[in-house]
Amino acid sequence: MMNDILIRNVRPFGGEATDLYILNGRFADGHSESAAVEIDGSDHVALPGLVEAHTHLDKTLIGMDWFENHVGPTRNDRILADRQAKRELGIDARRQSARQILQTLALGVLHIRSHVDVDTEIGISNIEGVIETREAFRDLVDVQIVAFPQSGMLVREGTLELMEAALKAGADIVGGIDPASIDRNPVHHLDAIFGLAERYGKPIDIHLHEPGELGAFCLELIVERTRALSMQGKVMVSHAYCLGMLDAPRQRALVDALAAERIAVMTVGSPSGPALPLRAMRQAGIVLASGSDGIQGTWEPWGNGDMLERAKYLAQRNGMTNDADLAEMARICTFGSAEGIALADYGLSSGCHGDVVLVPARTLAEAVALTPQRRTVIRRGRVVVRDGVPSDALPHIG
Amino acid sequence: MMNDILIRNVRPFGGEATDLYILNGRFADGHSESAAVEIDGSDHVALPGLVEAHTHLDKTLIGMDWFENHVGPTRNDRILADRQAKRELGIDARRQSARQILQTLALGVLHIRSHVDVDTEIGISNIEGVIETREAFRDLVDVQIVAFPQSGMLVREGTLELMEAALKAGADIVGGIDPASIDRNPVHHLDAIFGLAERYGKPIDIHLHEPGELGAFCLELIVERTRALSMQGKVMVSHAYCLGMLDAPRQRALVDALAAERIAVMTVGSPSGPALPLRAMRQAGIVLASGSDGIQGTWEPWGNGDMLERAKYLAQRNGMTNDADLAEMARICTFGSAEGIALADYGLSSGCHGDVVLVPARTLAEAVALTPQRRTVIRRGRVVVRDGVPSDALPHIG
Ligand SMILES: [Zn+2]
Ligand SMILES: [Zn+2]
Repeated sequence: MMNDILIRNVRPFGGEATDLYILNGRFADGHSESAAVEIDGSDHVALPGLVEAHTHLDKTLIGMDWFENHVGPTRNDRILADRQAKRELGIDARRQSARQILQTLALGVLHIRSHVDVDTEIGISNIEGVIETREAFRDLVDVQIVAFPQSGMLVREGTLELMEAALKAGADIVGGIDPASIDRNPVHHLDAIFGLAERYGKPIDIHLHEPGELGAFCLELIVERTRALSMQGKVMVSHAYCLGMLDAPRQRALVDALAAERIAVMTVGSPSGPALPLRAMRQAGIVLASGSDGIQGTWEPWGNGDMLERAKYLAQRNGMTNDADLAEMARICTFGSAEGIALADYGLSSGCHGDVVLVPARTLAEAVALTPQRRTVIRRGRVVVRDGVPSDALPHIG
Repeated sequence: MMNDILIRNVRPFGGEATDLYILNGRFADGHSESAAVEIDGSDHVALPGLVEAHTHLDKTLIGMDWFENHVGPTRNDRILADRQAKRELGIDARRQSARQILQTLALGVLHIRSHVDVDTEIGISNIEGVIETREAFRDLVDVQIVAFPQSGMLVREGTLELMEAALKAGADIVGGIDPASIDRNPVHHLDAIFGLAERYGKPIDIHLHEPGELGAFCLELIVERTRALSMQGKVMVSHAYCLGMLDAPRQRALVDALAAERIAVMTVGSPSGPALPLRAMRQAGIVLASGSDGIQGTWEPWGNGDMLERAKYLAQRNGMTNDADLAEMARICTFGSAEGIALADYGLSSGCHGDVVLVPARTLAEAVALTPQRRTVIRRGRVVVRDGVPSDALPHIG
């Protein structure tokens, strides 16, 4: 018998109804009249696997006691609380990352880029924990690991060496954070992470919350280094709030500079952060990606990791309500993020990996606006979630 | 047999576990050992009925065909699209208001203030439709109706007379909208609605989206008229975005002026609108209320009317993540809104109406952050929703 599946009557990315056929784990043209598995798509919207381009798998408290959050309002208050929680709550990075992956798999998230803490208290143990989870889920979900110096890098001696150890242990990407306001020396911080990236041949993903002109200056430093090291297409800036805080000509110049060096930007559409100029960025050709950031952790108590809900947040933050705009936000949470984190063979076309999420909605806009939960998720031609119910064959969390 | 119900082991507003006892539709001290009905609250959070202080029951498209939204970005584009939809989609205000009420009743919304359109095309037919629904649900949900000149009042001759007709037909509150930018004459607009309010002895609720100093000027006019007519405690301003767009001293002066005249402010925490200075407003003693605004209509495609989710939006818009702040946002969506729309005998104390919503959450903050859906809703001592499943005895929508 052939290893194939025929999905009848679905609307790819909200388009005309058609059948999708997956043979040996990839979409194929035409189809056999006797596929091994056949499912009725009921005219639902078919999306490629949702892409979580920015989360923190090692920080979620899903399934643990309720964390009473008495944390102060500054980023530093939150970093301290985060480190204290790691010490006192016994957050097991392996178990917690598995819990988040299982929760979001049920919603159709099949690709995840996770920042994972590296610091002088925990060393690279969180990296090792998430790598274990990645192995356990390797047939189900792609996990990219960013070595992330949450507590600072140069300001905490030994962290840079740990970053290197994380890359040797299996981290895929060099992370960075607020080179000025946290590490107190933007040039040294950026030189250090671009240096690591060059030596290990890895891409870069930098958390940049720095506001206004300080952020703009850091962006310029990132642009300069990306150009000097020919790292076009290999750098992502996460948040980049400063882009939403500048006057129009200054914003324009930075957007053009990012586009010229093919630097991708990840935005979560934070309701309390500045709104990025998404339209101008897209028109300039910047690859836009999105993510949930932390879910149910010490930083924020909420979050379900649903990238369709994320598309809704993006639309809401930007005052978008019409169907075309909602579809564009769905595109960011699928194709945009896929490009931003460099996924190969992504999409619903012939030859792409046979991953598809069926969403019971009449249009793509409705899928974004109402985020129906009873989805069917197919990974490499195998049904792993049916009408919201995960298959019994999924890994068990120890 | 007594007409009573004993709810064991719940945590009122997230506090210490206790039992709640309702006798003849009101909370009572102590309790009979043989209550007619006894339910196990399972240590869940108990809230008074959630209060929807601002919605548009006549505009929702719940249960209708998907509305393909191609509407432009300005408020005027949206008003035109809204009027066109009323003409072309055959939105039945009676049926649609009932659908929204049933949907939100399942989440624990027991009190609703709805703006209802009055204009020269539909006259007061929407008012009449929502009044019919109000009658059908009168034992389940309180509905206050605001006569709302969505398309303008002075700029559309005959609307003021229709507003008067709406009050005579049973509308409870005089509405208004953007006295400058829509009605083109702030003094005439406000004089007209305050005049109606005075003649009919009704409160006022004004949609005020006017930005910056224009909005501030309109607020000043509202303050002056509230004082002159001794309408303290009887005026609500909905949205009041201008408060989030002024420099600190100007903001302070307006906040104090609103507090002095006991003018309530309703905010939805819009992710794309300016954030109001909630802390300063509360400290000044302003009554803060909240609402969903429109749900699944031509203005916005999303929305479920869940006032616990609304508390989450308020927190997110204002960058609040700690438990105390989340509890404060839950307070706005219950006690704050109740005071804002002048509900009598509201709360979980002895003597109050016996309305309670049980939310399966460990703390009030968790109830806000994760908005669990399987709630139990009790109205005047009668269980109308059990673990998310509405009673068979609820009204049927024709
Ligand atoms: Zn992050
Ligand atoms: Zn409104």
